Amino acid sequence: MIDKPRDYCGIFGIQNHPDAALLSYYGLHALQHRGQESAGIVTSYFDEEKERWIMPAHRDFGLVLNVFDDQEMFKNELKGRAAIGHNRYSTTGAAKNPANIQPFRVHYHKGNIAIGHNGNLANAKQLRNRFRQEGVLFQSTSDTELILHLISHSQKETQIEQVLDALEQIEGAYSLVMLTDDKLIAVRDPNGFRPLALGKVDGSYCVASETCAFDIIDAEYVRDIEPGEVLVMDQEAGSDSEPESYHLDPEYGTDTSQCIFEFVYFSRPDSKIFGENVDKVRRNLGKYLAKEHPINEVITKDTGDTKPIVISVPDSSNTAALGYVHENQKLGYECKYEIGLIRNHYVGRTFISPGQKSREQKVRTKFNTVKGVIEGRSVIIVDDSIVRGTTSRYLVSMIRQANPAEVHFLVSSPPVIGPCYYGLDFPDPKELIANRYGRDIEEMAKEIGVDSLRYLSASGLVDAVRESNVSSGGYCTACFTEKYPVPVNFGIAKEENEIV
Amino acid sequence: MIDKPRDYCGIFGIQNHPDAALLSYYGLHALQHRGQESAGIVTSYFDEEKERWIMPAHRDFGLVLNVFDDQEMFKNELKGRAAIGHNRYSTTGAAKNPANIQPFRVHYHKGNIAIGHNGNLANAKQLRNRFRQEGVLFQSTSDTELILHLISHSQKETQIEQVLDALEQIEGAYSLVMLTDDKLIAVRDPNGFRPLALGKVDGSYCVASETCAFDIIDAEYVRDIEPGEVLVMDQEAGSDSEPESYHLDPEYGTDTSQCIFEFVYFSRPDSKIFGENVDKVRRNLGKYLAKEHPINEVITKDTGDTKPIVISVPDSSNTAALGYVHENQKLGYECKYEIGLIRNHYVGRTFISPGQKSREQKVRTKFNTVKGVIEGRSVIIVDDSIVRGTTSRYLVSMIRQANPAEVHFLVSSPPVIGPCYYGLDFPDPKELIANRYGRDIEEMAKEIGVDSLRYLSASGLVDAVRESNVSSGGYCTACFTEKYPVPVNFGIAKEENEIV
Amino acid sequence: MIDKPRDYCGIFGIQNHPDAALLSYYGLHALQHRGQESAGIVTSYFDEEKERWIMPAHRDFGLVLNVFDDQEMFKNELKGRAAIGHNRYSTTGAAKNPANIQPFRVHYHKGNIAIGHNGNLANAKQLRNRFRQEGVLFQSTSDTELILHLISHSQKETQIEQVLDALEQIEGAYSLVMLTDDKLIAVRDPNGFRPLALGKVDGSYCVASETCAFDIIDAEYVRDIEPGEVLVMDQEAGSDSEPESYHLDPEYGTDTSQCIFEFVYFSRPDSKIFGENVDKVRRNLGKYLAKEHPINEVITKDTGDTKPIVISVPDSSNTAALGYVHENQKLGYECKYEIGLIRNHYVGRTFISPGQKSREQKVRTKFNTVKGVIEGRSVIIVDDSIVRGTTSRYLVSMIRQANPAEVHFLVSSPPVIGPCYYGLDFPDPKELIANRYGRDIEEMAKEIGVDSLRYLSASGLVDAVRESNVSSGGYCTACFTEKYPVPVNFGIAKEENEIV
Amino acid sequence: MIDKPRDYCGIFGIQNHPDAALLSYYGLHALQHRGQESAGIVTSYFDEEKERWIMPAHRDFGLVLNVFDDQEMFKNELKGRAAIGHNRYSTTGAAKNPANIQPFRVHYHKGNIAIGHNGNLANAKQLRNRFRQEGVLFQSTSDTELILHLISHSQKETQIEQVLDALEQIEGAYSLVMLTDDKLIAVRDPNGFRPLALGKVDGSYCVASETCAFDIIDAEYVRDIEPGEVLVMDQEAGSDSEPESYHLDPEYGTDTSQCIFEFVYFSRPDSKIFGENVDKVRRNLGKYLAKEHPINEVITKDTGDTKPIVISVPDSSNTAALGYVHENQKLGYECKYEIGLIRNHYVGRTFISPGQKSREQKVRTKFNTVKGVIEGRSVIIVDDSIVRGTTSRYLVSMIRQANPAEVHFLVSSPPVIGPCYYGLDFPDPKELIANRYGRDIEEMAKEIGVDSLRYLSASGLVDAVRESNVSSGGYCTACFTEKYPVPVNFGIAKEENEIV
Repeated sequence: MIDKPRDYCGIFGIQNHPDAALLSYYGLHALQHRGQESAGIVTSYFDEEKERWIMPAHRDFGLVLNVFDDQEMFKNELKGRAAIGHNRYSTTGAAKNPANIQPFRVHYHKGNIAIGHNGNLANAKQLRNRFRQEGVLFQSTSDTELILHLISHSQKETQIEQVLDALEQIEGAYSLVMLTDDKLIAVRDPNGFRPLALGKVDGSYCVASETCAFDIIDAEYVRDIEPGEVLVMDQEAGSDSEPESYHLDPEYGTDTSQCIFEFVYFSRPDSKIFGENVDKVRRNLGKYLAKEHPINEVITKDTGDTKPIVISVPDSSNTAALGYVHENQKLGYECKYEIGLIRNHYVGRTFISPGQKSREQKVRTKFNTVKGVIEGRSVIIVDDSIVRGTTSRYLVSMIRQANPAEVHFLVSSPPVIGPCYYGLDFPDPKELIANRYGRDIEEMAKEIGVDSLRYLSASGLVDAVRESNVSSGGYCTACFTEKYPVPVNFGIAKEENEIV
Repeated sequence: MIDKPRDYCGIFGIQNHPDAALLSYYGLHALQHRGQESAGIVTSYFDEEKERWIMPAHRDFGLVLNVFDDQEMFKNELKGRAAIGHNRYSTTGAAKNPANIQPFRVHYHKGNIAIGHNGNLANAKQLRNRFRQEGVLFQSTSDTELILHLISHSQKETQIEQVLDALEQIEGAYSLVMLTDDKLIAVRDPNGFRPLALGKVDGSYCVASETCAFDIIDAEYVRDIEPGEVLVMDQEAGSDSEPESYHLDPEYGTDTSQCIFEFVYFSRPDSKIFGENVDKVRRNLGKYLAKEHPINEVITKDTGDTKPIVISVPDSSNTAALGYVHENQKLGYECKYEIGLIRNHYVGRTFISPGQKSREQKVRTKFNTVKGVIEGRSVIIVDDSIVRGTTSRYLVSMIRQANPAEVHFLVSSPPVIGPCYYGLDFPDPKELIANRYGRDIEEMAKEIGVDSLRYLSASGLVDAVRESNVSSGGYCTACFTEKYPVPVNFGIAKEENEIV
Repeated sequence: MIDKPRDYCGIFGIQNHPDAALLSYYGLHALQHRGQESAGIVTSYFDEEKERWIMPAHRDFGLVLNVFDDQEMFKNELKGRAAIGHNRYSTTGAAKNPANIQPFRVHYHKGNIAIGHNGNLANAKQLRNRFRQEGVLFQSTSDTELILHLISHSQKETQIEQVLDALEQIEGAYSLVMLTDDKLIAVRDPNGFRPLALGKVDGSYCVASETCAFDIIDAEYVRDIEPGEVLVMDQEAGSDSEPESYHLDPEYGTDTSQCIFEFVYFSRPDSKIFGENVDKVRRNLGKYLAKEHPINEVITKDTGDTKPIVISVPDSSNTAALGYVHENQKLGYECKYEIGLIRNHYVGRTFISPGQKSREQKVRTKFNTVKGVIEGRSVIIVDDSIVRGTTSRYLVSMIRQANPAEVHFLVSSPPVIGPCYYGLDFPDPKELIANRYGRDIEEMAKEIGVDSLRYLSASGLVDAVRESNVSSGGYCTACFTEKYPVPVNFGIAKEENEIV
Repeated sequence: MIDKPRDYCGIFGIQNHPDAALLSYYGLHALQHRGQESAGIVTSYFDEEKERWIMPAHRDFGLVLNVFDDQEMFKNELKGRAAIGHNRYSTTGAAKNPANIQPFRVHYHKGNIAIGHNGNLANAKQLRNRFRQEGVLFQSTSDTELILHLISHSQKETQIEQVLDALEQIEGAYSLVMLTDDKLIAVRDPNGFRPLALGKVDGSYCVASETCAFDIIDAEYVRDIEPGEVLVMDQEAGSDSEPESYHLDPEYGTDTSQCIFEFVYFSRPDSKIFGENVDKVRRNLGKYLAKEHPINEVITKDTGDTKPIVISVPDSSNTAALGYVHENQKLGYECKYEIGLIRNHYVGRTFISPGQKSREQKVRTKFNTVKGVIEGRSVIIVDDSIVRGTTSRYLVSMIRQANPAEVHFLVSSPPVIGPCYYGLDFPDPKELIANRYGRDIEEMAKEIGVDSLRYLSASGLVDAVRESNVSSGGYCTACFTEKYPVPVNFGIAKEENEIV
């Protein structure tokens, strides 16, 4: 996919490790694909001289490698055996406001507390209005800050009770890492929208949005944080002690609803999320795509001896394309996986760039065709999803210039038709290609400029995911089906609070 | 004076002028001596397209000329016909925290509001504790933010009522400029600790800490904001309308207590504050100094034909030194005003520099003696005040190297003995030279290395000020007399909130 | 390949186009893989008001996208219908010296002249010494500057004659773009070490190191600049006129010696160099690798139903790996192309980073394994080359952690054994793995940690290249064979001139 | 003076001192008034490990305090027992070209050499043309670089011989500090245009443009470098050895011609130059001004009891104004020295600012009147010189707003009528007020807006200087008299080389 929803956030936390900040840095780097706008790490340590807990923070706009460009800061500044980190691509909160860079950190009457959030609260607007009426002032335009106000306004006795009190008042999608003076708290909302895994390194527990953050620090994967679980890792307890678990009740009538788009596009193929290898699921999507649309039903031209070729849009659809090829070969249909598009990795993702006047120049800057591979062939492009369709169209026109016999476009997920209220920032529904062309696939194919356009069906998508991930609970497919598992009050109106 | 209390803040505001931000910039530049750490301007305008009020801000660390280094920002960014500005040298609030740069600006349920503050709240600690217990989170470590929380938490109906409600809850020293969507509000605390004047330019009202900010923009001085006055300048009312005045009651048993140190050292000699020209008052201080310590009683050596010379520590004591010379001449005592010290203006004031390991190198970097002037003469140094005395000592030793016949030190104010709780940041009382040497003037003279040290008496100080400024109310002389007009709860403990 | 020689330079030039600088920018971006340290563009235009030619330059350290981060500069600053551009990774010249950023630009008695260079002069030391003895002072530590001194010191009449005079005095590898007031000059050394192609866009001629720079601006490929060709594109002549060609004689006894490493690793697979598609050649390298080492001779373990898998080190060996798989399949050997390694593209190439204390952490930061793909399989890694071998070793150890049945390493080129004196910056020959282990393949395999290590033979390499590129001349294989086509005087001793 | 010629350069050098760079830093800071555009220090030390001399440099645009903002650099970077430093305000050489920041430093066949220059070569154009014809390329647009080319092209045997050889070929004004690997060389041109003094600190020799640079480091003044002297301080010789002196012959028919403008305005009043205290000379200028224009002949209005007041334009004319007052008092004329103008020191000097669209706003930003002092008085403004007169005019209009009885303007030097070819950058002669009004004083007074304008006569100027400085040689008064002591070939045309 090349014109995809905005990525949102990666979170990481670690307790009781002498290199807490440094490991967080590597973890955030591995999660860079989940948010390239800003990065931050907060640690906690007890200052013997000042006789109080200190919670240093380093946060800035930019990639992890740029924000943390001086290794000294891990020794001198970000001291402590516990740390949390956050990569952001904002879904709410004005992008350019530095006050929106997470983790947030405050001091209140119970001590320090810091928070990093992946997701989107469904009742943010109500909560914000309630607080505004009370006269509460906000530092940021982010819904994450609401959680801190809920905690600091809680009348409960202990910090843990205050945190639970606060979490019971929020709805929607939230995987959280929180740091108090001496505790690391990892939370996954009762519906389990966003992933969050528990790992272990050198005997210390860590948590991360995806397990690729464990691999980079040689941590082992222990298990997922369960939907509704609040896991408390206490520093005082020492590294041998087991974390303590609390549980939040789901909203009445709602079920586990893990984001299926994580498998389709967001997560890295080398990660395990929702208990399964992303690579394996994505390969299965290719397999089901082949079952629904075997290549012999796709191609229409006879190109003689030269087999039809399957090319991916690198790198996100590589695995699905390979899965498609291998299943076709298994089914006895001749085809070859080829590298027909080269991606220039010196650009950030398309959506990152501001301005973006010329989407065409953008695509051309990012991709080039390998002409010899394409010329005279039946070309099947496999992509993971189509959102607006405008960049797909230009990509196809580039491929056409290399003179293929025909071009077909296969998508390893159904058409995107609805907005996401749980942490993804798709464009306005009116801009989605499926909506612009009344969900008429032929019209959409014409728009994109291909000989045919085919999608994986919604049931095929769910079956493909379930086949490879039997044990796991339910999925949210709202962006493909408009079935929203948790009612939403349409978030924070951005403009209203932008100026704070 | 060369080792003086930290300067604190300059404020400026203007309503209903097409160049509101630009004039604020010039005003702040003229007030630069009141705070060199950071500068900021906030404006307000109604965005016809978005159909709401916008309150842009530009704030940063640095001098006014550096913070506003691109003239385009006055057109493109800081739009609007109303503006407030602020120069800061922090008295409370950790210096390096960017969240402490004023003016503060928030959005709450009644609209936007911004504030710039010169002074120090006496009951900040109580207010902060009260809010903390309620769960309120703070953006900054500044006591100024408390005023915003008081306003936003007020249950009153209108913004003006809320502002008055908030002001009634605070004590201590505060001259304020506030900006709401459509109103500029100027406030001076009931004791009138800090100056604040009203001016007019092109028919528009403006306010500033000192009138030198009016001169630079060709505004005329109208009058002072009165102690306890809350002056509201409404944009909607148009530029012809008169501002509306509200009045705060002083604390029971307290009286007008204008900071006498503003006349002694802080304000610019070309300004008018508390209704009088600073130059005139400072000249009078020199005159009273001559009355108390005529030069013939000071000098002890016979230098033949060469008259004794009076030199100032440039530039702050120039006027008092001239006043001292002229009064002596009037009294018939021979002496000459001379330029014996050259100041290198490419340094900021001593206290600005961080680290400050070597006060001696600092003095040497900033001053040099004019040797030919000093050699063989009886030298009388006139300075406006002495705080720690360490830099005075080094300055004297530099002068000694130029071989004067003798060196006497005259101070145009009494010894500083007590801390200021109303906006000045003197060093710890134990560090004050008067306290270090048990207020024994001879010991202090020895420490500084002069043949004699003489101060203006406290009564002489007040008489000198009153003589030139008959009409005005009472003065706060607490730093010289330890008579504190308003009880203080010792402010915010800095460390406690630093980490927020 | 992951621990490869330093990339060096990409060059671009365009004559008689209204968007000369902007197209150069896109061209340089497409050539970013050839040098990530610095980037620069120089243009030329006649200023009607000043009545003389102006040659503006914009050059800085960083990637093309960062150096040219303000689109306004293409209109306001880099005016003119002719431009040259340069990406650098320094081979000679201290990296951090801003004076070494190309294109160089000088004004001398014949007018302005600018130059961008890809390559390395073989007689730089002699030339430099000669000039030094004459008292010539150098701006940079780059050998490129010598060409400018040769031109400016030339006694010839016209600039073209001076350029030819200078070129006749230099030896070694040089593809050049030069800009005089009104002429663009493209040069390829008589041996043709480095690539340089001629293209055409909107009727205007352009030149570039690789044709991927043409694709991004929709230019068509015309032909290669020939070895020894000096092509002059005159602005005055207008865009319709044909460029004029001059020819340099090769050194006595030397032959065309195009860098075969460009095909092996350097150039982009979507480029055409030396008259052939890189992708096609690289695929052929995989094919010849399969011929020499068919997979059934490589694998030793029986993994039952699961086929052996071939994985590439992304992205540089993707094509060779695919070629290897397809040829094996053609030969009837079962195997599958799989994505077993994921590359994190948020890092620059390994060698870019300064310090580089921990090569291991570096590899781990850049690559991760897809565990499900590797587990239990016979894994064949295909890489394009091995230099030091240290990162290969670590990569293999990462793969081992994913529990493959066995791991074999195939390289689509012969062992690197000798330094390059023509523009590549391999590590010291003693550090090359082949030399460290006496060219004993089994020892090298042990060092890397694989069950077997196999290389393409030198003859296989040349055959593979020739098969796909019949028409082209000879190749330089010196790094693999130590047969150096042009004698070298060991360049500039870096230290000697570093301090200039 | 407020619209004065551009300041040019301050130079400093020290040999055989452990803190060579640090003392240079302080020295340059004291010389900051001589050039605020850029600053640089070069040191030299023998690196035992590399077995060769290293010459580190740190140079940048900005004030000394900003360029050297990290004290670590004096220990880690700028190592060595010898150093030279330079402050620049460019007279030739495009201001914004970083290659023009001095000291220049090159490596040539005899070793390293660095140079800092105060002055302007009279035959720069011929030398540059000669070199250009030979094909020499230039790094900068500065005439200083020519000296380096002359040295490196010299056929003499030793470095000292080469330096002397080079110096014999240049004409005009040059005070130089040069550093070779082991020698510090100080040079003053045969006419002695620019000052250069020799000092001693901790037994080590140092040189500086003005002695204020000695005071700041507690160095004692030894003597001036003589006109035509080349003083060589050898590191090898040890700190006890005496420097060796060489002498250059003056141009035939020329005489010592020390810049009288240094006394009038440029040098600091606390400095000694050309063998005399600047303060003393400047006071004498005030005295002669009183002799030529006693105050009773100046004032025309009767202001009753209030004496006429004399105000200076701070700070440069303070001393002359005091001298004028004291002489008048001696002559029995009543008048008072007063502070009527306040200068805001948070601005750089007027000429520093780029753009300078509104000279009026500039003046207003820099000066304010002390109204109470001026009102109703006869005001005599004493300034050191007038160049364009535009800012004087605005200053007078500011003073008029404070309602004086009358305003007279006295200048302690003659009208500036000619350009300086020896290091000062006066505006174009056509812009000088004296030339714009045909040297008609009354017209000039009208333009400036004063009741009368009076200048010190040229003979008065020379007499005043000679009276206080009997021993010294002749002076250059060309800017006042158009008598140019050394013929000039009108320097380097700036535009011609700007683009290099």
